[in-house]
Amino acid sequence: MLVVMQQDASSEQIQRVVGVIEEMGYQARPIPGEQRMAIGVVGNDGPVDTSRVEGLPGVQEVISVSAPYKLVSREWRKQDTTIPLFNGTVIGGPNTVVMAGPCGVESEAQLLETAEAVAKAGATVLRGGAYKPRTSPYSYQGMGVEGLKLLAKARERFGLAVITEAIDLESLDAVEEYADIIQIGARNMQNFSLLRRAGKARKPVMLKRGLSATLKEWLLAAEYILAEGNEQVILCERGVRSFETYTRNMVDINAIPVIKQLSHLPIVADPSHGTGRRELVSPIARAAVAAGADGIMVEVHRDPTQAKSDGPQSLYPEQFRTMMGELERISAVMGKPLLTGSAIAPKGNRP
Amino acid sequence: MLVVMQQDASSEQIQRVVGVIEEMGYQARPIPGEQRMAIGVVGNDGPVDTSRVEGLPGVQEVISVSAPYKLVSREWRKQDTTIPLFNGTVIGGPNTVVMAGPCGVESEAQLLETAEAVAKAGATVLRGGAYKPRTSPYSYQGMGVEGLKLLAKARERFGLAVITEAIDLESLDAVEEYADIIQIGARNMQNFSLLRRAGKARKPVMLKRGLSATLKEWLLAAEYILAEGNEQVILCERGVRSFETYTRNMVDINAIPVIKQLSHLPIVADPSHGTGRRELVSPIARAAVAAGADGIMVEVHRDPTQAKSDGPQSLYPEQFRTMMGELERISAVMGKPLLTGSAIAPKGNRP
Amino acid sequence: MLVVMQQDASSEQIQRVVGVIEEMGYQARPIPGEQRMAIGVVGNDGPVDTSRVEGLPGVQEVISVSAPYKLVSREWRKQDTTIPLFNGTVIGGPNTVVMAGPCGVESEAQLLETAEAVAKAGATVLRGGAYKPRTSPYSYQGMGVEGLKLLAKARERFGLAVITEAIDLESLDAVEEYADIIQIGARNMQNFSLLRRAGKARKPVMLKRGLSATLKEWLLAAEYILAEGNEQVILCERGVRSFETYTRNMVDINAIPVIKQLSHLPIVADPSHGTGRRELVSPIARAAVAAGADGIMVEVHRDPTQAKSDGPQSLYPEQFRTMMGELERISAVMGKPLLTGSAIAPKGNRP
Amino acid sequence: MLVVMQQDASSEQIQRVVGVIEEMGYQARPIPGEQRMAIGVVGNDGPVDTSRVEGLPGVQEVISVSAPYKLVSREWRKQDTTIPLFNGTVIGGPNTVVMAGPCGVESEAQLLETAEAVAKAGATVLRGGAYKPRTSPYSYQGMGVEGLKLLAKARERFGLAVITEAIDLESLDAVEEYADIIQIGARNMQNFSLLRRAGKARKPVMLKRGLSATLKEWLLAAEYILAEGNEQVILCERGVRSFETYTRNMVDINAIPVIKQLSHLPIVADPSHGTGRRELVSPIARAAVAAGADGIMVEVHRDPTQAKSDGPQSLYPEQFRTMMGELERISAVMGKPLLTGSAIAPKGNRP
Repeated sequence: MLVVMQQDASSEQIQRVVGVIEEMGYQARPIPGEQRMAIGVVGNDGPVDTSRVEGLPGVQEVISVSAPYKLVSREWRKQDTTIPLFNGTVIGGPNTVVMAGPCGVESEAQLLETAEAVAKAGATVLRGGAYKPRTSPYSYQGMGVEGLKLLAKARERFGLAVITEAIDLESLDAVEEYADIIQIGARNMQNFSLLRRAGKARKPVMLKRGLSATLKEWLLAAEYILAEGNEQVILCERGVRSFETYTRNMVDINAIPVIKQLSHLPIVADPSHGTGRRELVSPIARAAVAAGADGIMVEVHRDPTQAKSDGPQSLYPEQFRTMMGELERISAVMGKPLLTGSAIAPKGNRP
Repeated sequence: MLVVMQQDASSEQIQRVVGVIEEMGYQARPIPGEQRMAIGVVGNDGPVDTSRVEGLPGVQEVISVSAPYKLVSREWRKQDTTIPLFNGTVIGGPNTVVMAGPCGVESEAQLLETAEAVAKAGATVLRGGAYKPRTSPYSYQGMGVEGLKLLAKARERFGLAVITEAIDLESLDAVEEYADIIQIGARNMQNFSLLRRAGKARKPVMLKRGLSATLKEWLLAAEYILAEGNEQVILCERGVRSFETYTRNMVDINAIPVIKQLSHLPIVADPSHGTGRRELVSPIARAAVAAGADGIMVEVHRDPTQAKSDGPQSLYPEQFRTMMGELERISAVMGKPLLTGSAIAPKGNRP
Repeated sequence: MLVVMQQDASSEQIQRVVGVIEEMGYQARPIPGEQRMAIGVVGNDGPVDTSRVEGLPGVQEVISVSAPYKLVSREWRKQDTTIPLFNGTVIGGPNTVVMAGPCGVESEAQLLETAEAVAKAGATVLRGGAYKPRTSPYSYQGMGVEGLKLLAKARERFGLAVITEAIDLESLDAVEEYADIIQIGARNMQNFSLLRRAGKARKPVMLKRGLSATLKEWLLAAEYILAEGNEQVILCERGVRSFETYTRNMVDINAIPVIKQLSHLPIVADPSHGTGRRELVSPIARAAVAAGADGIMVEVHRDPTQAKSDGPQSLYPEQFRTMMGELERISAVMGKPLLTGSAIAPKGNRP
Repeated sequence: MLVVMQQDASSEQIQRVVGVIEEMGYQARPIPGEQRMAIGVVGNDGPVDTSRVEGLPGVQEVISVSAPYKLVSREWRKQDTTIPLFNGTVIGGPNTVVMAGPCGVESEAQLLETAEAVAKAGATVLRGGAYKPRTSPYSYQGMGVEGLKLLAKARERFGLAVITEAIDLESLDAVEEYADIIQIGARNMQNFSLLRRAGKARKPVMLKRGLSATLKEWLLAAEYILAEGNEQVILCERGVRSFETYTRNMVDINAIPVIKQLSHLPIVADPSHGTGRRELVSPIARAAVAAGADGIMVEVHRDPTQAKSDGPQSLYPEQFRTMMGELERISAVMGKPLLTGSAIAPKGNRP
């Protein structure tokens, strides 16, 4: 529910509305606008009796927000949310952004060589898992904090912003310290304690769609983060589970324009996990940008045949360069030019 | 199985190989190449004992075609199949093609006005259902032959090629007579009798993907048509069934580059049935072209609010014009410029 | 829509209601009840203006049937539909019925030996495909009419009723002549021409659920058959498509009590196609009966290792006997005792 | 991998095999059998070079365990795992067990009245959520520790064992203290940190299947728990996500016999969450038992119309009693009689 105040509403009138909302057992969130104040009501699980608020002095209109999510909705906030990073990259802004790097951080040489390759090709955000959520307890589980330190080293050297996954409360503390964006993976999309913790983080959060999450469930998961106060959230479509076995998942390109319509949050696509096949990464990356995505996250490895995880879906550096050329042309047509390293500070430093 | 002959193989040697294949109970299909002859073997349901063929004079190599489909596969035929139509349109060739029109033919005025609008905006193929496969026996079932005659009239007047759906053997006879492309719908993708009949038709066939057909099942359905001798087949991705209820179906953009890799047949996408929502048609059409589709089929109605079926997913003529502009730019980037009416004979006539 | 007449309504009043319904462009179907007459209205695709009917003399009540299907619904018909067969078997009645036999009719010896085995174990209906809808054009396609004749021979010899699949209009003619129940397969569930033809057949029809058909779509497909006048329809749950690859399909046991609630038609389950694995057939057959199914259809082969199709899911005769014992106990608990051959005429003859 | 020792192998020989396995970088787990010792090898993510072990003195055979999971597999452990509880209930043993109670603990009166009703009807385990994982951050989130204390009170009064869900590390500590079985919900099935923590708990764990988890992923999730040393794991099928919208989820009854075949762990079914509809709970509960389930978990509420969550799928106490009668008969037929409160110590006390 959104209470829109009259243009000339006094601060006393606003305070009174806030007070009544709290008396009713909800939370009130004043949202200052250019011409008038609006007050969001959260904490209600179902319809609210609006009559007590409608009659208060200074109230112009009470708008019922019909969707079960609120803070993430376009109804709540008309303008696109933008996520600025230290090196000049802005996700959700006028440019298309590319995040690239290996599936997992495996060694200093592997990470730095790959980071150099993706930076040279124009990527401005470096991906790389230090903590790996693995289906089998016996699979490689990642380098942990050592991996985070290597990511920080790569940032220093190449001016890339860093995104990496947190898999639980403990790793989130570490990721928050070292990375520029905290990634929440598909398997944790409804790990509500982790979402709440991410909502208290001082860093942006990228929330991947769950394996078979509906768009509504995904937006509600993001709502958990915003409800704790962190509005810097990026959504990432990474393919959903289907009956088709040729591809690892089915990238739901339809989700991109739908999310743009329903929400003000930026959305990127991950064609690497989405397809599970190297040769499909470029076409699906192009499709995502053409459908309106704010960016792309792809796996690149200096030598995919040696990757400890996800080799078959990792691009060779050469393939990544070709893809960047394609995305440059598609994103130009979309009026959302590709952001490349040369367009931002040549050697950024973390503030 | 594919028997590759030596460059200097004599016609007697070729005849002998054909004879042995037929003795083994299979059919032999000679495929003349630029430098050498190959002989395809069809009719085997499982592995073939190649030893009898390998030792024959003139045989250079016997290649096992591993996929369960053959005639539709890239292994069988390297070059893209092209489908030329009377008015200069070529599907699967160097241009991106747009097919547009109403979901169903409802009246002369409705069809001609819509046809004129899509022709003016650049479409070169007119769609419109005369026979409608409807989930409920009580829903509007189409105009039948009267609808086909109206489609032919629109072709005469605007030089558009005509595509329309056949829903059974009887309607296929009529559609074959009146239309330029015979459409087989998603619900009939495994109607094998209909596929066999389409394989004997003298017109190209567009085969839509079944509601939850795997890519392999879809290619095998196309194989039924080619196996009867009709090689003019177009595939159409129209969205698959999923758990997501926001969109009518989930357009599987991934299918486009996969089909391009596995098969030589052209593939188009139908974002109208795929999404079920007008506002998603343009983004998904752009995505399909960016992923490598040979064309797009979309529903346009002079007044969607009055449509007897599929109104919510039909574009207004004005929206269609805007979409054509977007597709023009995306297809140019893809090196596969949009084919528009002005680029082909201004008033085509059916041969 | 259902028009309920007063108990003492005259036949003139009934005729007048019928006339008004027909004037409105719909069909009227008088349904005599024990105490009063009701008149069903079909042919409307959407809400009907009831005011013209409500005011007519003799009309007690006009009930709107909310579901999109009508003739198949419990609202339309309260009592269970029963399907009596020549040999005393009744499907949908007080007994649980077992249909068994090979996937396909392969030879006289194969069919007769298998038929004898299933008859001895208690089955009263023999299954066996003479026409096989196959995903690949190169797979074994069945014996055709020769297969039907063998099925008739097995009927003569063992007193089993015969069910076999029709895959198109042509084969339906033949199946109608030779079989006792016409089966429509999953791939043809929305082959509307075939459904209409089945609706005119003089034999009961068993309609399998489509690969990813919703319950509503399935009931609407059955509605096509009833709308043509054939009320002897059996539904068959045979597993739906899912992301799980361990089983061939996912048998949706939930569908059984739901269908029982929504419809008066009998429902059976096919655990053979449903699971694709011999060792799962018995547990799923038991589950289906415990959930309220009217019967079971299973594949049995005298020697599954030699089957031309579906060997891995066919039971050995010995396994079938064991399963019959289990079903006997479960169906007794359900108050719907297993019908076995010994309970009906020892050697039935077709009327 | 499993190393089977000769019957007369000395403890020195066994120690040497253990040493070599550890040298190779794996963990060795001696498994004493009745006649001989076997040594399990865990920690390998892929094939192990068996040659070093095969030649050692005392080794009879090295068995490769082909599945990606090990400790949970039937190959690893032939006998069914049994989970004994303080009040005489044994899950996975010769009896069918029923767990029942409200979706969430809402108040002392609500819990105690419901607990009394289910105890009187024969249930021996009480369910009730104190921590609720909710899709929306604005939905009711449970009573927390106060709820756990009420569950303990109900246990004291009615001799019921208690199962309740832990949703994160913090709540797991509390649940471990108060409950008899720790439940891990569907959304946390791949919350690997939580699984590891559950693997260190001193209480049995019930692991629900994820919303679209394959059977392999589910077993691997259980493997996480066993790999940490907790072998008291129960699996719970609660329905998977599908395209069908009539039911909340699709209960995959097929999973029951498959899990029984692949694993030694007990499996129960939850028809309440599985179907989301009260009227389907009994039929699906019966089907699960008929398919071989070790037990059933159902939601019962003294007044479902007043439930804060899941009202539509909660049984009335009267319906629960009727269902118990049905399960009694089905489980008797299955040779796995229903365990009821009167069969165990009338008033159990926690050890």
